[in-house]
Amino acid sequence: MKIVVQKYGGSSLSTLEKIDSVASRIARREKGGEDRLVLVVSAMGETTNDLTRMAYDLSPDPPARELDMLLATGEQVSIALMAMALHKHGVDAISYTGPQIGLKTDTLHTQAKVLGIDSGKIQKQIDLGRVVIVAGFQGVTAENDVTTLGRGGSDITAMALAVGLRADRLEKCTDSDGVYTADPRIYRSAKRIDRLSYEEMLEMSFSGAKILHPRAVFFAWKYRVPILVKHSEMDGSGTWIEELEEDVEQPIISNVTHDVTVAKLTVYGVPDRPGMAFRIFDCLSERGVGVDMIVQSTTKRLVNDISFTIKRGDLAKAREGLEKLAADCEGMEIEADDRVAKLTLVGLGIRSDSSVAKDMFKALADEEINVEMIATSDVKISCVISEDQVKTGVRALCRRFFP
Amino acid sequence: MKIVVQKYGGSSLSTLEKIDSVASRIARREKGGEDRLVLVVSAMGETTNDLTRMAYDLSPDPPARELDMLLATGEQVSIALMAMALHKHGVDAISYTGPQIGLKTDTLHTQAKVLGIDSGKIQKQIDLGRVVIVAGFQGVTAENDVTTLGRGGSDITAMALAVGLRADRLEKCTDSDGVYTADPRIYRSAKRIDRLSYEEMLEMSFSGAKILHPRAVFFAWKYRVPILVKHSEMDGSGTWIEELEEDVEQPIISNVTHDVTVAKLTVYGVPDRPGMAFRIFDCLSERGVGVDMIVQSTTKRLVNDISFTIKRGDLAKAREGLEKLAADCEGMEIEADDRVAKLTLVGLGIRSDSSVAKDMFKALADEEINVEMIATSDVKISCVISEDQVKTGVRALCRRFFP
Repeated sequence: MKIVVQKYGGSSLSTLEKIDSVASRIARREKGGEDRLVLVVSAMGETTNDLTRMAYDLSPDPPARELDMLLATGEQVSIALMAMALHKHGVDAISYTGPQIGLKTDTLHTQAKVLGIDSGKIQKQIDLGRVVIVAGFQGVTAENDVTTLGRGGSDITAMALAVGLRADRLEKCTDSDGVYTADPRIYRSAKRIDRLSYEEMLEMSFSGAKILHPRAVFFAWKYRVPILVKHSEMDGSGTWIEELEEDVEQPIISNVTHDVTVAKLTVYGVPDRPGMAFRIFDCLSERGVGVDMIVQSTTKRLVNDISFTIKRGDLAKAREGLEKLAADCEGMEIEADDRVAKLTLVGLGIRSDSSVAKDMFKALADEEINVEMIATSDVKISCVISEDQVKTGVRALCRRFFP
Repeated sequence: MKIVVQKYGGSSLSTLEKIDSVASRIARREKGGEDRLVLVVSAMGETTNDLTRMAYDLSPDPPARELDMLLATGEQVSIALMAMALHKHGVDAISYTGPQIGLKTDTLHTQAKVLGIDSGKIQKQIDLGRVVIVAGFQGVTAENDVTTLGRGGSDITAMALAVGLRADRLEKCTDSDGVYTADPRIYRSAKRIDRLSYEEMLEMSFSGAKILHPRAVFFAWKYRVPILVKHSEMDGSGTWIEELEEDVEQPIISNVTHDVTVAKLTVYGVPDRPGMAFRIFDCLSERGVGVDMIVQSTTKRLVNDISFTIKRGDLAKAREGLEKLAADCEGMEIEADDRVAKLTLVGLGIRSDSSVAKDMFKALADEEINVEMIATSDVKISCVISEDQVKTGVRALCRRFFP
């Protein structure tokens, strides 16, 4: 008997009608009766945003512990409603919060890391023939305080359960029928990808694709849990994310990802002596600002320029920290640009085909798109460009790599 | 150092502004610094009704366990927001759900009874100088399932905490500045009562006064915890509910309560043989219908008529059950009347002053109000009258007993 963990996001559960529709699909599948289902659900629609706004309307600086107490209610509403809907359709189902199934985390409220999970309680209910519904995104500390796992945290809950229950696979049910070569709203001829390697998916997640949380992909890879990305309300196939043998014939480039939620910071005139880069990134880390791409210019002067990208929402606090640092170092200056975007090519073939980078820059240059920063890995090449050229850039790369 | 448990109902917390206002009052009181505060809060405004409606929109018969999972989120939102508001006003506060403080209940979902409470966790936070905020209305079974305590259940949570923490008193903070001799919206000259005995308050609660849950009053009486009913946003006194010595000079009548949420059922032609009353009330009990006043006519015939009152919302299921029973007993007929009201006089003096009943019926008769049923106890006299005469009745009794 195979256990399948299904994860439903907020947009698949945004109304009572959608919850009912998902429940009726699950009921039909249950009658077929092959797989044992464990569902992980997010909060309905925009609930998490609404609750967050409420907290900040009340207080400019709500304590993180209490934010988690508040946000965790969103998923609790979803599990209860899903259980009711399943009962209505004749399915014996039972709901659990993160704390109830012992999803233990560290104490970093609003961004907690999963430490472990007690899958025994769920396994017992599965053995009783029940569909188990688990609240995503939430856990509990050793002190029994409620925590949340950050944006996209329900993916991590689902993956932790899939690993803990030795599930056959994780089905990520969403409002798209799979992963596409590029955003179909920008490039109409984008095609659904049948199979992706964990490595490609991980690079896509890091590059701004909202399909799966990078930590969920990382765990899937580590424990070799296959993921199927599929539509929550349609039958048929989707995109499989799994271990791909090197000799499997895969396209050189799988996907063009873009991300318009980034900002670029440049620190000019950094004294060329040991410890300066440390001071810059320590100052950001202290403020909880994560840095993505980093480029340091090497000049023959006694000072360097360092550019890096961060999340756009972190720009104000990053800038404030760096301005303070600059005040201590004569000649150091900060420049911020929040009108940039990141454009990323992902593909296993990048490893072996050295012409990809050249072709990418040629395609962008033909559209007169200036590349401000570049970062590469085995399976991806990312560029920072101006935000207003991002659609042109996506289309140019699609035409070049998915002709 | 005295511990004071304060209970805030949904109408005192219906908006972020109201929560902020309550928090700022608490902050000012904390700066005075005499009492240690434990707050018990209800769900904001109409949240519980909204969630219940959502559940029944989704399913005609939602499982009680899942209803509790859903409803418990309402109070969880309130505790988190109240904690944020208190922090904003400089008060160190911490929130707990019912399950987190180990408020153990039986397994009767949606109507669970409190079995015990682990006050150690709260006491520890009090000793650290924190204001503790507890979610009312909710608890947890031995199996770690979330339960709720039924309408008005937050009063019971507050009283269980007051008893467990050996609190100096329970302050019930509401949108009225105390208990009045009658509803001031009906009788303008109604006056605030300074002191009431537990017994009077208990009769008032049973008679439809929405001030305190009867079980909360019962526990207060049993453990001699004084209750102060006061306004949540105004200073000054309120109404004390406490043990009153018999020789304390109290008015004969304290209060006129009315209740328009009742219905009257009459079973005609009940065969006059043992077991028939049992079958009638067993049939109601099986359907979860609670019976309040009961009158059985004694005639010289071989059949009796039995009349009783129930909650109006239970009328449909009560009627359905009794019709079935009547189908088995020839000549038995059911009559339902949902346009009735209950009018109750409450006062310690009823015990000793035998003229009260006479005066009550005279006052009603003078207004040509027909009394359909009567029930009495040591400290109350209740009448069932026609609903459209209830305001006239309240005023007539007020004029007679609070001239």
